[in-house]
Amino acid sequence: MSDFRIERDTMGEVKVPAEKYWGAQTERSRNNFKIGEEASMPKEIIYAFAYLKKAAGQANTELGVLAQEKSDLIGRACDEILEGKLDNEFPLVIWQTGSGTQSNMNVNEVVANRGHVLEGGKLTDEKKALHPNDDVNKSQSSNDTFPTAMHIAAYKLVSENTIKGIEKLRDALQSKVEEFKDIVKIGRTHFMDATPVTLGQEFSGYVQQLNNSLRCIKNALEMVKELALGGTAVGTGLNTPKGYDVLVAQKIANLTGLPFVTAPNKFEALAAHDAMVELSGALKRTAVSLMKIANDIRMLGSGPRCGIGEIMLPENEPGSSIMPGKVNPTQPEAMTMVCAQVMGNDMAVSVGGSNGHFELNVFKPLIAANVLQSARLIGDACVSFTDNCAAGIKPNKENIQNHLENSLMLVTALNTHIGYEKSAKIAKKAHKENKTLRQAAVELEYLTSEDFDKWVVPAEMTGSLK
Amino acid sequence: MSDFRIERDTMGEVKVPAEKYWGAQTERSRNNFKIGEEASMPKEIIYAFAYLKKAAGQANTELGVLAQEKSDLIGRACDEILEGKLDNEFPLVIWQTGSGTQSNMNVNEVVANRGHVLEGGKLTDEKKALHPNDDVNKSQSSNDTFPTAMHIAAYKLVSENTIKGIEKLRDALQSKVEEFKDIVKIGRTHFMDATPVTLGQEFSGYVQQLNNSLRCIKNALEMVKELALGGTAVGTGLNTPKGYDVLVAQKIANLTGLPFVTAPNKFEALAAHDAMVELSGALKRTAVSLMKIANDIRMLGSGPRCGIGEIMLPENEPGSSIMPGKVNPTQPEAMTMVCAQVMGNDMAVSVGGSNGHFELNVFKPLIAANVLQSARLIGDACVSFTDNCAAGIKPNKENIQNHLENSLMLVTALNTHIGYEKSAKIAKKAHKENKTLRQAAVELEYLTSEDFDKWVVPAEMTGSLK
Amino acid sequence: MSDFRIERDTMGEVKVPAEKYWGAQTERSRNNFKIGEEASMPKEIIYAFAYLKKAAGQANTELGVLAQEKSDLIGRACDEILEGKLDNEFPLVIWQTGSGTQSNMNVNEVVANRGHVLEGGKLTDEKKALHPNDDVNKSQSSNDTFPTAMHIAAYKLVSENTIKGIEKLRDALQSKVEEFKDIVKIGRTHFMDATPVTLGQEFSGYVQQLNNSLRCIKNALEMVKELALGGTAVGTGLNTPKGYDVLVAQKIANLTGLPFVTAPNKFEALAAHDAMVELSGALKRTAVSLMKIANDIRMLGSGPRCGIGEIMLPENEPGSSIMPGKVNPTQPEAMTMVCAQVMGNDMAVSVGGSNGHFELNVFKPLIAANVLQSARLIGDACVSFTDNCAAGIKPNKENIQNHLENSLMLVTALNTHIGYEKSAKIAKKAHKENKTLRQAAVELEYLTSEDFDKWVVPAEMTGSLK
Amino acid sequence: MSDFRIERDTMGEVKVPAEKYWGAQTERSRNNFKIGEEASMPKEIIYAFAYLKKAAGQANTELGVLAQEKSDLIGRACDEILEGKLDNEFPLVIWQTGSGTQSNMNVNEVVANRGHVLEGGKLTDEKKALHPNDDVNKSQSSNDTFPTAMHIAAYKLVSENTIKGIEKLRDALQSKVEEFKDIVKIGRTHFMDATPVTLGQEFSGYVQQLNNSLRCIKNALEMVKELALGGTAVGTGLNTPKGYDVLVAQKIANLTGLPFVTAPNKFEALAAHDAMVELSGALKRTAVSLMKIANDIRMLGSGPRCGIGEIMLPENEPGSSIMPGKVNPTQPEAMTMVCAQVMGNDMAVSVGGSNGHFELNVFKPLIAANVLQSARLIGDACVSFTDNCAAGIKPNKENIQNHLENSLMLVTALNTHIGYEKSAKIAKKAHKENKTLRQAAVELEYLTSEDFDKWVVPAEMTGSLK
Repeated sequence: MSDFRIERDTMGEVKVPAEKYWGAQTERSRNNFKIGEEASMPKEIIYAFAYLKKAAGQANTELGVLAQEKSDLIGRACDEILEGKLDNEFPLVIWQTGSGTQSNMNVNEVVANRGHVLEGGKLTDEKKALHPNDDVNKSQSSNDTFPTAMHIAAYKLVSENTIKGIEKLRDALQSKVEEFKDIVKIGRTHFMDATPVTLGQEFSGYVQQLNNSLRCIKNALEMVKELALGGTAVGTGLNTPKGYDVLVAQKIANLTGLPFVTAPNKFEALAAHDAMVELSGALKRTAVSLMKIANDIRMLGSGPRCGIGEIMLPENEPGSSIMPGKVNPTQPEAMTMVCAQVMGNDMAVSVGGSNGHFELNVFKPLIAANVLQSARLIGDACVSFTDNCAAGIKPNKENIQNHLENSLMLVTALNTHIGYEKSAKIAKKAHKENKTLRQAAVELEYLTSEDFDKWVVPAEMTGSLK
Repeated sequence: MSDFRIERDTMGEVKVPAEKYWGAQTERSRNNFKIGEEASMPKEIIYAFAYLKKAAGQANTELGVLAQEKSDLIGRACDEILEGKLDNEFPLVIWQTGSGTQSNMNVNEVVANRGHVLEGGKLTDEKKALHPNDDVNKSQSSNDTFPTAMHIAAYKLVSENTIKGIEKLRDALQSKVEEFKDIVKIGRTHFMDATPVTLGQEFSGYVQQLNNSLRCIKNALEMVKELALGGTAVGTGLNTPKGYDVLVAQKIANLTGLPFVTAPNKFEALAAHDAMVELSGALKRTAVSLMKIANDIRMLGSGPRCGIGEIMLPENEPGSSIMPGKVNPTQPEAMTMVCAQVMGNDMAVSVGGSNGHFELNVFKPLIAANVLQSARLIGDACVSFTDNCAAGIKPNKENIQNHLENSLMLVTALNTHIGYEKSAKIAKKAHKENKTLRQAAVELEYLTSEDFDKWVVPAEMTGSLK
Repeated sequence: MSDFRIERDTMGEVKVPAEKYWGAQTERSRNNFKIGEEASMPKEIIYAFAYLKKAAGQANTELGVLAQEKSDLIGRACDEILEGKLDNEFPLVIWQTGSGTQSNMNVNEVVANRGHVLEGGKLTDEKKALHPNDDVNKSQSSNDTFPTAMHIAAYKLVSENTIKGIEKLRDALQSKVEEFKDIVKIGRTHFMDATPVTLGQEFSGYVQQLNNSLRCIKNALEMVKELALGGTAVGTGLNTPKGYDVLVAQKIANLTGLPFVTAPNKFEALAAHDAMVELSGALKRTAVSLMKIANDIRMLGSGPRCGIGEIMLPENEPGSSIMPGKVNPTQPEAMTMVCAQVMGNDMAVSVGGSNGHFELNVFKPLIAANVLQSARLIGDACVSFTDNCAAGIKPNKENIQNHLENSLMLVTALNTHIGYEKSAKIAKKAHKENKTLRQAAVELEYLTSEDFDKWVVPAEMTGSLK
Repeated sequence: MSDFRIERDTMGEVKVPAEKYWGAQTERSRNNFKIGEEASMPKEIIYAFAYLKKAAGQANTELGVLAQEKSDLIGRACDEILEGKLDNEFPLVIWQTGSGTQSNMNVNEVVANRGHVLEGGKLTDEKKALHPNDDVNKSQSSNDTFPTAMHIAAYKLVSENTIKGIEKLRDALQSKVEEFKDIVKIGRTHFMDATPVTLGQEFSGYVQQLNNSLRCIKNALEMVKELALGGTAVGTGLNTPKGYDVLVAQKIANLTGLPFVTAPNKFEALAAHDAMVELSGALKRTAVSLMKIANDIRMLGSGPRCGIGEIMLPENEPGSSIMPGKVNPTQPEAMTMVCAQVMGNDMAVSVGGSNGHFELNVFKPLIAANVLQSARLIGDACVSFTDNCAAGIKPNKENIQNHLENSLMLVTALNTHIGYEKSAKIAKKAHKENKTLRQAAVELEYLTSEDFDKWVVPAEMTGSLK
């Protein structure tokens, strides 16, 4: 492999692929951490670093510690990252140093080298327009940049993808609440027949679950919006100009359009990632909600002949070549798998979050990767589930009506007319002789078929007529 | 065993210990669920039921569906439960029906029978002053009472024990922040020596962690304050008088002095226990914080001769008979074990919470027991940790000073005076020859011992002098 | 509270309840660790300590380091513990020092003091027949006794309770395999109707799951049978006579009738509790199996009118007073709650297991308590589930037959007679027009009703006629 | 985008990228499941399918149900998959149908189309040499192929990567056991100074942990080697020739060189994935071990001046530009992050494993992806940790000696010479006056400096001289 150039750091020379913008430290990490798939560090983190580096450059210039041309150059390189032009320049994995230093350096090196080339320089020039540490990393440390990038990436992804996805599903379910508000059906508790509800009422529970999940996620974002930047190596802010932490957070807020602020205590912000743990917990809570919803929907749609079959899900893929009418509830399946993943990810995040020591938590890339995956999966799965399943759910009115009429527990409505004792006898006879309540009631001569129609009105039992 | 009486339910006769207030349904559950230790259903749940039954009686009377004498009698029996007089009347286990029906019936039976005896009746009377279902359970179902009891118990325990415990620890740590604000010490990242911080700054991170945890717990309580009561069997409120749900929540709020309100959607409140999942997640997030704090404190106190030894923990128990001076950090150990338990409990709660189906989640006792255990353990452990450890932490100033003086990274302070190059040479020489920075600097003739004293001022590096 | 006596340790005097056998160190722990319920340290651990202390006494005597009378006296006191006579003498909690030292000392103190009293002495005597450390704890350290007690307790409980319980359930299900071997029913995949199976085949899968779980648990016990005893403080065996570790393990094996051996590496046995982590994992794997089985059984029994209703579970408790015929699947509910708990406990154990440091893991009581609870719950729940549910499961042949006949996928059997194309048309017509396959087939004139009977034989499709 | 061709399935026409080998069903899945990153289905699963399809073709031909030319053609296409030539033909994600049907069809379509092209056909030909269902999927169902692919992939990866990686680390640590066998050092329990051990003894505990982990993983593989293939849709083996299940497992064993056999119960093999849950648990148990080892190593190497500093880790990357001598323990950090991930993955697998229903578990892709990731990460991380850290660990003899000499607990060795009382006084004086034991002993005139040297021999206390 002759196609390389020599890069140097304090430990000596390193061969780097000739055309790549990264430098010695990135290359060392590539070689020392061959764990799992290459380039597994989430792209969201790289992009978040681009916002961060650009903002830091601006703040440094504004505070008089970096030349305007340098911060402009940093900004131009960062813009290219954000446009996706440099996606192949970030080969590092999650499973590197726990501070994420190597990905911070990867960004520093790429921005510095790309900036130099944008100025007309060559990668092999001895002297560069930008220095990765002195310029691009100025007033920063990996220890405060990586957690800042985590928060930027998580806040952005959650607000733009996760929350939007959940809201979309919530809205689709809400429209079903209204569509189904007059469809009276049997309720089920303990998997057993119970008193009636409307199909709309069932769906209203799902809507409430999602609204509550949204509230929880938004509460967690209130912590995530706090940025560690300005704490540098150990939280003291060593080597930063006065006012830098507040200003750089404001710059990031401006660039992203998101309400970031500087963290009130930088020691906490470096040494603990409780805000990410909390966000992960909120996503897990959402997964718990979605698991319930997806399970209900696939079980309500079970059949077509030998299950519950009260709703029909859209037919998206051919069923088996053998069994026409077989629609597998594939969207609920994808959703419940996502939920299981998010529950597992939350445990990984918690283990990582609990093992920070002294001035630094060194499970940062793990925490970032799991939270971002959870956020992405929930958002995407909600959209997929909405478009390919929830929006197209139809009631199977015939099955719903059959179940409702067959149910023995409608007898409850007779209590106030003929008393509990006689009602119980009707129900028991119906159960034992496998008859309808009406049949049993009429045969026992406790009431007429007309009385039955007048008194047994399931819709009234749902309270939906009030 | 001749000492029993006969109780009856719709399935027939059951022998019940003669002197016990419970009835047939409780006894059946005792016999059918011999799983784990007896009487494992948390006492907090029983007491919460007492508030609930009393409040329901009052609301029923106020709404005209229960005689005043009956609700008074129910109230008197409930008061006895709350006074702890009937603690031995609740023998059931967590591992019963997943709706908690049997514990609801246990309370109904005990309240009815105790009420009857309070009126001068005997347990063997055929006719009783109160009927467990028709009176004590009036306008209720297990399906809405058990989740209501869960919320009452959890809100009460968390606000009276958990939050208080965390606040106590937070306050003790805050007083250390001030006490330690001028103690400059070496910082540590990646377990490796780093630039200095003050001991007070380190502790300020812990305080911030606990403040954030408190905020998260309080956010979760906003959901827990919503009560399912009034939903009855499936959430429709069948068999409740108009206005009951709002009124009974208000009665419970009055009795407990806590801000309970009726849940906006009863279908969600029965079928999902996401509020408890969220609370469990908030407790888990707190456990993650506490694990970090307790780990730091025991590692900072490690030694006495061969560890870090920068702080001294109170000596609460004799160390080994062999090794004087050995203080084991037993309080941090208890705390970290509690944290591990809370993390595990959260997983149990999540699994239970995700497996609700249709109109009812039937993992209620599991969810309740785990959340309550987590809440209790965190609250108690924080108090124990505060009283027996945190409050008595002392700095070991000699070790702190030695570490600080030996640390090579103080060289950073020279950068602005003699440049990075020379500073690096000083540090490398010191490291290689196992000397102090001062020795190396002077030997290299880059500066005088006086210059060193003037320029290398660790306290300035912490920013604490600003 | 005047009713106390004074006990002393190296830190000074402590007031101990006058009539209690425990001493100063136990009392200090009681006062310093008020976390959760009193006396939460599992009784199994206390009993395991009794075997251990008796065995250590015997080994010490045999190796010439302890007088025969002393070991006899230790043995007598230990026997009383094992008879349950001293259950109230162990007030300590799980949440103490992570080495379990305080519970080790609790046992030492109780054995020493009870031994002294057995010899005719008084608790207030200055000089005692046995010294808690020098005699009862001879050739031991908390660091090797507590893990040994963990292993004894876990091995005993798992082999006597857990495995027995699982085997009982396995046997009950196996008898159903035979009872149900000719009952052909619809299969279900994705909750959707599929090709037929026999009910016996379904249950045979459950039997296989439990057999595999048993194998996994037994594999884990192969590690648990290795005992740390003989490693003393740090694994080196300091202060033990030669041959002690092998001999004492043999003594414990004799006393318990279980195949304990000395651990091959004592450093691992003190510093890690991977054997317990592995056992916990095996119990979790079993919980995963049981969750599937219990879920299937309650869903197959759902109804009675509006669910699947293919099996009937024993009716153990009255259903609702309103709904005759309502049997709630309460045993599956208890079982699935147990499974969720075991899954959570496994996470707690894993967190504790992963956080050992240097020569000692200090999450011992946590690990012990969770593994023992999981073992107990699974064993008990299997027995309860067998006796109160599995053994009494009956097929609902009418529902099974109806489902089977209605199912569209039986059309598969026609493929080889009339080809896939025509079969598909039959199925589609049946589905669309809500007819039976037979109706559709005859109406399409692809075959006669007699042909249908000859060719569509569900039992043949199950392979059970082979 | 005009560059597509039309493919058809029973639901109609689908546009597929013109040059791609996949067909209609793959394309539908691509469009319907836009969840997370594209092509996330693990490559190991695709390759396992290639073995499976080839073996099934051979078995079908041998049993007379598939023409020889067809199975040859299938084999040729499968070989190309195994050579990595078709990696871009598998665009589907984990988050699809829970049976993995769509990935099974993806393979069927690619093999059929590639086979056709290999025969000289064109993708747009109406008639193809192979049919995805009738030929490539012959005697198969997604329901038995996907779990078979899971087992093939997992067995292969674990035996070729995970076990090899662990063994490599185990061997490197074992060589340290011998290298360090005479280095006597202070032991630590509760993070506190304790009696001495050798550095070799410490490392021997790690070796034992890994040996035990290997045993556990191999036990789990005994289950994983059982293949579901031959069960088809619901476990009954519908539509398979007699003897097929045994034969096809043998074919797979031949092709892979791994000891696969047919599963004894196909109902279990489709409906539950307990074998994968067990394997995940074994990997989690290994992660728990590795977490302990990596933590110890980074803490033993902490410093260089203000930590424990008893070992030195290889310096792989430049430390901070400010702090010469700073080596961050980056390999232990990557390892512990991997361990946290594996712990989380295990929870995801357990949740998925516990939620199978009736004849099919539909969390297959989730389970597969998590187990494979865990297996890969552990294997890779062990190799990286060995090469870049463990193999190069050096003792810091000076620090080790200083700690050992300073330690107060060496006083234990005097007990048998001057008695416990005097020993204790020596230790207390040393602690209080911050002196060495020798100084204190001599000042107290209990012994001479010569006695001290003779009696206090740390190496003897480790038992390593025996």
